[in-house]
Parts: sequence; structure tokens; C-alpha cells
Amino acid sequence: MPCQSNDELNILVKEAKKYTKDGKVADYIPALGRANPHDLSIAIHYPDGQCISAGDIERKITLQSISKVISLALVLMDKGPGYVFERVGMEPTGDPFNSIAKLETLSPAKPLNPMINAGALVVTHMIEGKNVEERFQRLLSFIREMANDSTIDYSEEVAQSEYKTSFLNRSLSYFLKQHHVIKEDVEELIDLYTKQCAIEMNSLELARIGMIFAMDGADPQSGKQIIPVHIARICKTFMVTCGMYNASGEFAIKIGIPAKSGVSGGIMGAVPGKFGIGIFGPALDKKGNSIAGIKLLELLSETYKLSMF
Amino acid sequence: MPCQSNDELNILVKEAKKYTKDGKVADYIPALGRANPHDLSIAIHYPDGQCISAGDIERKITLQSISKVISLALVLMDKGPGYVFERVGMEPTGDPFNSIAKLETLSPAKPLNPMINAGALVVTHMIEGKNVEERFQRLLSFIREMANDSTIDYSEEVAQSEYKTSFLNRSLSYFLKQHHVIKEDVEELIDLYTKQCAIEMNSLELARIGMIFAMDGADPQSGKQIIPVHIARICKTFMVTCGMYNASGEFAIKIGIPAKSGVSGGIMGAVPGKFGIGIFGPALDKKGNSIAGIKLLELLSETYKLSMF
Amino acid sequence: MPCQSNDELNILVKEAKKYTKDGKVADYIPALGRANPHDLSIAIHYPDGQCISAGDIERKITLQSISKVISLALVLMDKGPGYVFERVGMEPTGDPFNSIAKLETLSPAKPLNPMINAGALVVTHMIEGKNVEERFQRLLSFIREMANDSTIDYSEEVAQSEYKTSFLNRSLSYFLKQHHVIKEDVEELIDLYTKQCAIEMNSLELARIGMIFAMDGADPQSGKQIIPVHIARICKTFMVTCGMYNASGEFAIKIGIPAKSGVSGGIMGAVPGKFGIGIFGPALDKKGNSIAGIKLLELLSETYKLSMF
Amino acid sequence: MPCQSNDELNILVKEAKKYTKDGKVADYIPALGRANPHDLSIAIHYPDGQCISAGDIERKITLQSISKVISLALVLMDKGPGYVFERVGMEPTGDPFNSIAKLETLSPAKPLNPMINAGALVVTHMIEGKNVEERFQRLLSFIREMANDSTIDYSEEVAQSEYKTSFLNRSLSYFLKQHHVIKEDVEELIDLYTKQCAIEMNSLELARIGMIFAMDGADPQSGKQIIPVHIARICKTFMVTCGMYNASGEFAIKIGIPAKSGVSGGIMGAVPGKFGIGIFGPALDKKGNSIAGIKLLELLSETYKLSMF
Repeated sequence: MPCQSNDELNILVKEAKKYTKDGKVADYIPALGRANPHDLSIAIHYPDGQCISAGDIERKITLQSISKVISLALVLMDKGPGYVFERVGMEPTGDPFNSIAKLETLSPAKPLNPMINAGALVVTHMIEGKNVEERFQRLLSFIREMANDSTIDYSEEVAQSEYKTSFLNRSLSYFLKQHHVIKEDVEELIDLYTKQCAIEMNSLELARIGMIFAMDGADPQSGKQIIPVHIARICKTFMVTCGMYNASGEFAIKIGIPAKSGVSGGIMGAVPGKFGIGIFGPALDKKGNSIAGIKLLELLSETYKLSMF
Repeated sequence: MPCQSNDELNILVKEAKKYTKDGKVADYIPALGRANPHDLSIAIHYPDGQCISAGDIERKITLQSISKVISLALVLMDKGPGYVFERVGMEPTGDPFNSIAKLETLSPAKPLNPMINAGALVVTHMIEGKNVEERFQRLLSFIREMANDSTIDYSEEVAQSEYKTSFLNRSLSYFLKQHHVIKEDVEELIDLYTKQCAIEMNSLELARIGMIFAMDGADPQSGKQIIPVHIARICKTFMVTCGMYNASGEFAIKIGIPAKSGVSGGIMGAVPGKFGIGIFGPALDKKGNSIAGIKLLELLSETYKLSMF
Repeated sequence: MPCQSNDELNILVKEAKKYTKDGKVADYIPALGRANPHDLSIAIHYPDGQCISAGDIERKITLQSISKVISLALVLMDKGPGYVFERVGMEPTGDPFNSIAKLETLSPAKPLNPMINAGALVVTHMIEGKNVEERFQRLLSFIREMANDSTIDYSEEVAQSEYKTSFLNRSLSYFLKQHHVIKEDVEELIDLYTKQCAIEMNSLELARIGMIFAMDGADPQSGKQIIPVHIARICKTFMVTCGMYNASGEFAIKIGIPAKSGVSGGIMGAVPGKFGIGIFGPALDKKGNSIAGIKLLELLSETYKLSMF
Repeated sequence: MPCQSNDELNILVKEAKKYTKDGKVADYIPALGRANPHDLSIAIHYPDGQCISAGDIERKITLQSISKVISLALVLMDKGPGYVFERVGMEPTGDPFNSIAKLETLSPAKPLNPMINAGALVVTHMIEGKNVEERFQRLLSFIREMANDSTIDYSEEVAQSEYKTSFLNRSLSYFLKQHHVIKEDVEELIDLYTKQCAIEMNSLELARIGMIFAMDGADPQSGKQIIPVHIARICKTFMVTCGMYNASGEFAIKIGIPAKSGVSGGIMGAVPGKFGIGIFGPALDKKGNSIAGIKLLELLSETYKLSMF
């Protein structure tokens, strides 16, 4: 079923698009740098399968940090919250997502939460499977099921570029390996992590995954509970407290929608009980969030009273 | 109208009370040190004026850090969010509430949020009035109106003890004065701040204030909007992201109720649209929250499905 | 005996003076801000009482941080190294002189060394005497004896200006008081500390004090051992490892002379066994050292092979 | 010429040996863990080729961090101080030798000095040669020349053990690679660095290298200037300000001899113009220095007045 272009959404997108000029596309790898900074699109996916959109929602986006909340859901299902939260904390942090300093001052060296890179690496480390390939395929199947699209895959170009340049993630991983938080071969972990970040889909599919979280893990169309309720709720809580890097507090105040953003310019939102949101706007603000995407969510939240608070 | 003792609440309190033995009463001033570590009480205040309770809810508690969210509401009304958030941030932090190190590494020296001590001092600094006395009376009137009790006052003994020993708050204040964030005389600010923290009330009154926040700032009995809706919501958001010191993330995941705790063992909760909660349990866990109070809220949230997430 | 203007020194001063244009006079108090950034003078005081100079060595300079090494000598004599080094460390630090962050991460909260502000405040706190006045007079007498000038006093204007604006030193002091490292009233300590920093003398007198340190504490003219040998050596070691703020390492490598600088633009040097140096050049580099003064010492050290290393 | 056992040294060793019981042998790799904690030996090498000793000076020690000062000398000769100090700082630090936090707060990410691990890795990175093997052979030749022993080599067992477990050094290296300070392949750098640390020699040879530094880089027996004077002096300055990890300040005050220690329990000392010292005492204190070795140097310095200060 095609997603319907929606006039009200188009007006909001037009308004939010003005802010793209103040942002900057991530360019640490060529594939991201090629994005058009003025792009902005949104899809909203309802539980009944209906969908409205504005902008070019067919464009593929790599998940990047959005994948962190999905791998967390999988690992919580694999291992249970008790096991997971012994290895990664539940606390938001005012530090940047890629900071290593806090790991050193904390004892033990347990990343503060699963949304910063250190924590996300520990989460990916916990994905079960007998090798990188099997672990990746398990994650991919999980994502395909939520997005209801069995053709979703990862971008080899992006994965390889990131693999070649992930020096900071290797630094974090070796630090965590030194402290016995990560036990596997670091190169394998980085291989798996960069593939995870390179999984790509369009805004519509992103919105559908957001809808699954919004519905507490249930897929209303298939009737299947893809993620147990308590785990879907844990994920949404992290989306509120740490989903938007170190702008999460401001986002919660101004917008109040559980959301997770990625450096590709994607944002996945989950309005509890209502619908899922997929946004693509590659121009980023200084904290790494889609500058126009955040503006668009702000307009959406104000217009339709979507804040949880 | 007296608050009715409630059987179900009594059962939960009995269960939660088992955890008091693992906590420790704050003893940095004599008045707090005299509290009975095994105490635990709760009042729940409904919008229609009904109230249920368990334990000795008449016992008076000083607000301590609970006052931070109330002074924030007053200052947001005095100055508006724009002015306030230029001077104090909106981001949660993984650091302890009394940390000074982050102030030094941030530039400018803007406290990360209004719930850590540095931020709360900046908030109290912004309370309007021509002198300490007038500023304090304005805060007190605001609190009396929310609690619907014109006899609420502060404990002189507690205020004086804290004033004499607030070395760390003076350290934070002078640091902020050096960086022009605080401009008034530090001794006056500490005077006002320690009085604010020493305001005392019982659990029932605490629950009534929580109810005002739960009702988006409206007092359903008088019909008055005591706090504008958007400001009440900002306060509730901070209660979720930073209300329980650096255990806020875990609290959001496990309990999911906007809440603010104080070192006296008090917790004020606000279940959006439903009711306010006042808890007193002076035995604290390592992060400074009432150990049995948190357990009680966890039981309450599970039993009655109160989590926002 | 008048100090003789010296041709070789005049040539070096002329050369070093070129660098004054890249520096900036401290202007956080008016008295310092009035200094002429292009001034540069030097006096060298020999053990036999001879003295050579270049520039206007009659100009009075407040000691500022130079006083730290002198109060350290007095306190080591008052209390002994064992007592002193239980309260302040012996380790250099890469942090700025006024940093507070490290105090928080260290446990116990012991300042790393007596040359950073936190450590110097602890040292001044240890000066014996029954009140601020007596403690200050003891320090002043000690300085007058070393400089061989009983008229040396402090600048009331500078002391008062600094007293009014020492917010950061109050912040450090209250932090240390919270941790029981400082026990006296903070206002009294700041009073004593700002007077200590405001003691003023000319370059010639500064050079004479440097000469006393160079001669291991002995005054060759009076024959008196003003400072015990082992204490004079401890002081000189700190001058090498931490005397020039967080440029001490570079200074040791390039110049290799025990020295202590102050924000007024003064530098006191002590070439072991040979002579003392007093420099005044108020234009400062980014780390707070006299920019032309350091250049002058570099030329001097190279020309006359003065490095200890 | 054999090194003569010396009665006075034997008495000092006997006295210092009492402290071995308070230390602990490094055991992060098996080869170090096998050392006898009660061992203590010393060799003193004079410029005229004479040598005195106490204890079993034939036992081989791996250089570990002692190698940092030697690779620094080689790199300063290869590249010149200007090039080197653009990439690594000259400032001592109060942080532990393996800290990463400071790298993050500094901008640019330049290690504070070449004696902490981050700085030493940058130094080793700068050793010239067309591959790891050639670079290592150049360092080895340099060491053999100073020690006057062409049979010196590295312990393959130690190098391999360290290579397998150097997670923290990999973390530091990748962090520096992210910030473009290190450009080569990290595995190659770790290969070279672990070989460098695993170079082994006995105390007598260590003392001879110390003697070369003591003589400002000259080998009095061959008449050759192995290291230019100004570079030998830079190295000695670092030995004073940062040679003994974050106990360097205390070591300078109490002992005052340029020295560099390693986690194997070795200490190389250089008494300027007089002699070199080689010590082996594998029981370490909490900061990673040979506990009895430091005591032995303290006794030696007091007895023979060896302090520079």
C-alpha cells in the first residue's frame, strides 16, 4: 500500500526546511557526504497500516545510531534486562556520544547507557550467534520483521568506509576490552557494528519500526508481539532520556516524543499508542541531530499535541 | 478532609519497608540525623480532593532537593523559559548532583540542568524580589497555594544548620559568580537557598503539590491555574530526566513516574492526569534517594500500571 | 649599594623586549591593568652583594603567585615537611593553576602541589599565628629579612581589589573546607592570601630573595641561614617542576633555572650556587607567564650556560 | 671488566631490601609475574669504565617504560625537537601514565609528555625506518651502542605476551589515530612498541646507558658523542619532571636524580657529570615504581649528596 502525500505534513516540511541551511551534512565518509543538505522528508505510519508522508520518502537512509535502540531490543530479548544492565548503565549523560573520558573516571568501566557509542558497542557485543555473519543476520531478520520488508539490507559501501575509519570506536572497544567488558576480537566487533550502522531503509520503513515501538512491540497487522511489552517500554524510555545525543533533555522538553536519531540525518519517532515516524534530513546541527528534522518534530508535536509530558 | 488509611497501600508499604535496613539516614546536620531510618509513609492525593495513605503521614519533612522543581516553576513564571534556559541547561548528566568538575570543562560555565545543585543555585538566584526575605516569601506563598495550607513554613533549625555547613554550595556559587552566572552576594544566595531547602510539610501536602503538577498546573478544587500548562510540563519533564539524581535513568525505566526526591527522604511524584504522591522514608540509598520510597513507587507503578512509557 | 646597569644585560633586554607585543597585561583588577605592556627589567643579585641590572628596576611589582614559594618555605619551617605534605601534594600537573576539577576526581581532595592555587591556599592556611594580622606580619618579616629591606609592605589597593574579586579562590577554599583540608574561616583565609599576593617590591629585592634560594637558604652577607638547606632545596625543586604554571616542563627543558612567576609579570629565578634573578615584564603569554621575561631568561640561560640539566 | 661488589652499596641494598615486602610484582603477563619480589640489585657505572655493584646484577630485565627515554633520544635525533614537540608536549601531569581522559579534554589531542604511554606511543611512531623491523633494529643498535654490548636483544616471550594484551595501548593509539597524531597502522605500532619495551639487559648495562645520559650523551671510553648534548639534556629534564610516573615530583624532592623506571622493576639513573645507575627490584609500589629501588636511591642520594637541587 502506497503512502499518501499529505497536505498538512507538506506545509510543516516546507516550514522546517528553512532550517536546513544552518546545518551541515556529515562528511567523514564519502557516502554520507553525498547527501543533499536541503532534503527533508517524513512518513507517519499508523497501526492500521495507513501511512501519510511528505517529501521523497523513497530515498534510502543508513540507520547509523538509530540502530542502537534496535540492537538493544534484540539483546534485551536475547539476554534479559538483568544481564544487559550489569554491563551497560541506564543513566543519561551530558557528555558527547563518543566520549571516552567518563569511562576512565567510572569504576567499573561500565558505559553510562546504551545510546552512547561505548554502550552501543557493548550491546552489539552481546548479540548472540556463533559468528559475525550469524549475529548480523539475526539483527537483520529482526529489523526486516519490524519493517515488514524482507529485502532490507546493509550498504556495503558505507559499512566498508566506516570500518576503515572507525578509529574512535576501536579506541572505545579496546578500552572496554582492557576492562573485560568486551571480550571478543575487536575487529570482529567493529565489523558487526559497522554493518549494523550501515543497514539502510527508506523513511516509510523507519516509520513502521517506530510504530512497532509505539505499539509496545506489537505488530497490529500480523498480530504478532515482535518485542515483549516490557522491553519495548525500556527502549522507549531510553529514546526519551538519551535518544537525541546530548540534546535529549531539550528534545524531551520541547517535543516530548520518544525518538532516536542517526548521523545520516534519520530520526525514528514512536508516539506511544498512536503511530511511528520516519524522518530523513541530512543537514545536522552541532550535536549531530537532523536540524530540520528536529524542527519538523517540534512543529508536529505542537500542532497535534504529541508530547508525553 | 482527613486522608484515609488504605489497605492496599499498607500492604505495599509493609513490603517496601523491608528495604529500609539497607539504607542510611543523612546525618550531615543533626536535624536530619534524628530521623528514624525505618519510617516509611505515603499519601496519594486525587484531583477531586480525595486522599489515601499508609503510615504516619503527619510527620513533617523538609523539602531539600524537592524544592528545586518548585523554585524552577516559580522562576519560569517570573522570567520565562527563554531567559531561564540561557542560564541553566536542559540536559541530564551522569555526574553526581553536587559535582563541580563539569562546570569547569563546559564553556560557558552553564550548569547542565536545574536539578543538580549548581543549576538549582542559579534558579534560586533568579527568584524575583527586592531582598532575600521578599524572595523567600514569594516562594513560600507559591508553595502554600499549591499545598493549600497557609501555615507551611520553614524549619529554622534546619536552615541554620545547613547555612553553617553549606561549603560545597558556596564553592559552586563562587565558581558560578566567577563566571558571571550568579551575580548576587553569595551569602545572601546561600541564605535564601538553605531556607528554600528547609521548607517543611507533611506527606499529604507533598502529595497535593505533586497533584498540581500531575494536573498540568491546575488546582481542580479552586479552579485556578496555579502554574501555566507549558511550565508545569517542563517541570515534569525534568522530574523524568533528572529528578532522582544520577539514578533518574533507572527510575524512568523501572517506574516511569515523574518524581523528585530530597535528601530528607521525601519523594514527590506526579502521575500525569491522575494524582500526586508524597512519600517519606529517610533511609537513603547510595545515590541519595529514599531506598524504601523507590521500592514503594516501583511496587505502586507495577501494581497500578502507572509508567508513562 | 646601587645596582649597576650592565651592557650585556641591556642587549638581552632589548632583544627580549620585541616579544612584549605578543603578550597581554593582566587586567582583572585595575592596579594590574595600568602596567605598561612594553616594560621589561631585570636585576641579578650575587652572593657577594654585587648587583647588575637592565631596565627600570625601581618599579614596584606585587608578588602574586611568586609569594607561593615563599609562604611554602615559611610553612615548611613552621610545620615541617611531614605535616605539610600530608595536606598538599608534591606532583606537577598538566592542569591550569586555577583548576578545581582535579580536586573532585582525587580522593582525598588534596591539591596536587603548592604552586597551583588550591595548594597555595592550603599552604597559606598553615601559616602560624593567632590571627590574620599576626600571620601576615610573620610572612612579611620573613620576606623583609630575605630581601634585606624592612620597608617592604603590601599594596592595600591591590589587596582590596583582589579580595573583592577572588571568587574562584573562594570557590576552591570552600571546596577544600567541605573536605576538611581547610578549617579556618574562608573570608579570613582570602584576606590573608590576597595580602600575601599584594606584597610589593622592586626587581632588585626580588633578585635578592632569589639569591637566598640559590644559596640554599643562607644570606651570605649576614651569614645567617634564613631557611634550612633542605627546605630551600624543596622550594627550588617545586620551582623547577611547577614554578611556571603549566608551562613548567617546557621552561625546564628550554631554560633549566628554578623560577617562579606571577601574574603581575614578575619572575624570581634562583641559579643554584650562583645568583638570584628578579624580572619584571607585565605582558603575559597565554599560560600567565611574562612573555618577554621568559624570552629574557632563555637568552640568559643560553648565553651563560645556566641550565641545571 | 667485571663490576666489583661494593661493601657500602651492599649495606644500602640490605637496608632498602626491607621494603620489598610492601610491594607487588607486576603480573599482567606471566614473564613479569615470575620475578622474585625480594630481589634488589644495583650497578653504578663511572665514566672511566669502573663499576661497582651490589646484588645479582647479571639478571636480565626488560626495559619496559625505561625504553621511553631512549626512544625519545633517538627520535629527537631523527626529527629534531621542533618536529617532535609539535606532536608531544613537554608538561608533567598528575594523571596516571596510562590515562586517556586528558587526551579528550585537550585540544588538539596532543599527549602531555613523552613519558606517559600516549606520548611514548607517539614517540615510537616517529622512529624512522622503512618498516617495523628496520625501525626496531635502529633502536636496538642505538641501545647496543650506549650499553656497549652488541648482544643485547629483546625477549620474544615478553613482547608476544604484551602484544596479545596491550588493549589499553591500542585504545590510546586508535584515539590518537582518530585525531591524526598517529598515522601508521596501529597493529604495526603496537608490534614495534611491545618489542621496544621487551628489550632486555642486566643492571650493569642499564647503568652504562644511564652514564651516557649523565655525561651529556658522550661515551668517555670510545670518545664518541652518541647523543648530541642538547638532546641528552632534554632527556634528563624529562627524567626529572616525569620519569617516575606520577610520583616524579616527590622523587625530585626526596632524591633529585634524573631517573626513569619501568614496570619490570628497573630504574635507570643519571647523576649529571658523575655516573649512571642501574637498579633492579621487581616489587612495585602503587604508582608502579620499584619500591625498594626508590628507597635505595633515597639512601644513595642522602649518603652521597647526589640531589641536583
